[in-house]
Amino acid sequence: MARVSQEHLDARRRQILEGATRVFVRNGFHATSMQDVLREVDLSAGAVYRYFSGKEELIAAIVTEVLGALREAFADAVRQSPPEPPDVLVGRVMGRVLGGEIVQGIGGELIPRLIVQVWAETLRNESLAEVMRSGYAKVYDSWVEVVEAYQAAGLMRADIPAGHVARTMIAVAQGFAAQQALFGEVPIEVLQNGLRGLMSMDGQKPG
Amino acid sequence: MARVSQEHLDARRRQILEGATRVFVRNGFHATSMQDVLREVDLSAGAVYRYFSGKEELIAAIVTEVLGALREAFADAVRQSPPEPPDVLVGRVMGRVLGGEIVQGIGGELIPRLIVQVWAETLRNESLAEVMRSGYAKVYDSWVEVVEAYQAAGLMRADIPAGHVARTMIAVAQGFAAQQALFGEVPIEVLQNGLRGLMSMDGQKPG
Repeated sequence: MARVSQEHLDARRRQILEGATRVFVRNGFHATSMQDVLREVDLSAGAVYRYFSGKEELIAAIVTEVLGALREAFADAVRQSPPEPPDVLVGRVMGRVLGGEIVQGIGGELIPRLIVQVWAETLRNESLAEVMRSGYAKVYDSWVEVVEAYQAAGLMRADIPAGHVARTMIAVAQGFAAQQALFGEVPIEVLQNGLRGLMSMDGQKPG
Repeated sequence: MARVSQEHLDARRRQILEGATRVFVRNGFHATSMQDVLREVDLSAGAVYRYFSGKEELIAAIVTEVLGALREAFADAVRQSPPEPPDVLVGRVMGRVLGGEIVQGIGGELIPRLIVQVWAETLRNESLAEVMRSGYAKVYDSWVEVVEAYQAAGLMRADIPAGHVARTMIAVAQGFAAQQALFGEVPIEVLQNGLRGLMSMDGQKPG
């Protein structure tokens, strides 16, 4: 009995999160009211506020979910030894995000728009910034592990701080998401080819 | 007489643009009214509306300016034959943007925050999206030229579409800007090292 109830609670929570994500993507966070969310999920205020105290908590929950799933996608990748090269790895993780597997009920093509809106919101919302920082730190740690494995396997020059490469790989993914949001969908293969092009250059210190 | 007047007009226009940029960065576009802009630049409504019909036109002008300056920074770089490698080139261009040389009177550390806000605004403002698309196309064209020069000089494998590498390089820069906005300043050297790490890998097709 208690267990069925928990499942029901979880399903309801998810229903609210997905509906809220849809409205946020459509209208932006600022232009969205809790009324809009209630209308979208077709639930009473009482039902929704039982789970989330307001817009801020909804946003934080969505961000936590997306970052957590990203982290998981990396955890899978890190298990391989040596890990797949950056072009393959980025393709797999981005494919999982944009393929819509992370937020059920949200088309993958909407995720980049959501991401850009979350970034903008983060600039003036300190509690969201905290959620972002801690989620980002986890993705960063995963990338550092991957890069250290490349270096240990002799696949990458070892005299560069792994954290610098990690940041750069995250930047590539973030920027690609921004491009998708701004200019529409592009096959992930484009990014993978671009990385292969870069990797085919000479990576020694200039001069 | 006419010439002095034109100089005066230009200076006034710039004063308004810079003040507007400061308020936008501080408060976000949505929370900023034209009243806020007037207060910041300390001019009458008549003086300001002579140059800009409203917030939208101000935003478009700022974006045009930033993208134009980016384009110029690249044009300089493209003139060299062969062009500098990606890590050096990205460092130079990003240094120019974040060093605050593009929008006078705006600390370079604020530019990433402005960029992220512009992206979010672009999602629901079709005229701004148009400005972005055309500005982006110019930066893209510059990068394609650079990549083709790498390939012609035998510095990069030539069987990858130059446009894919161009998109990837732009993604790196965009993502780095997003990180600066979200998590604070980081030396450009971090990105340069990260690129060098990638470039030191094997860029052949997997499998």
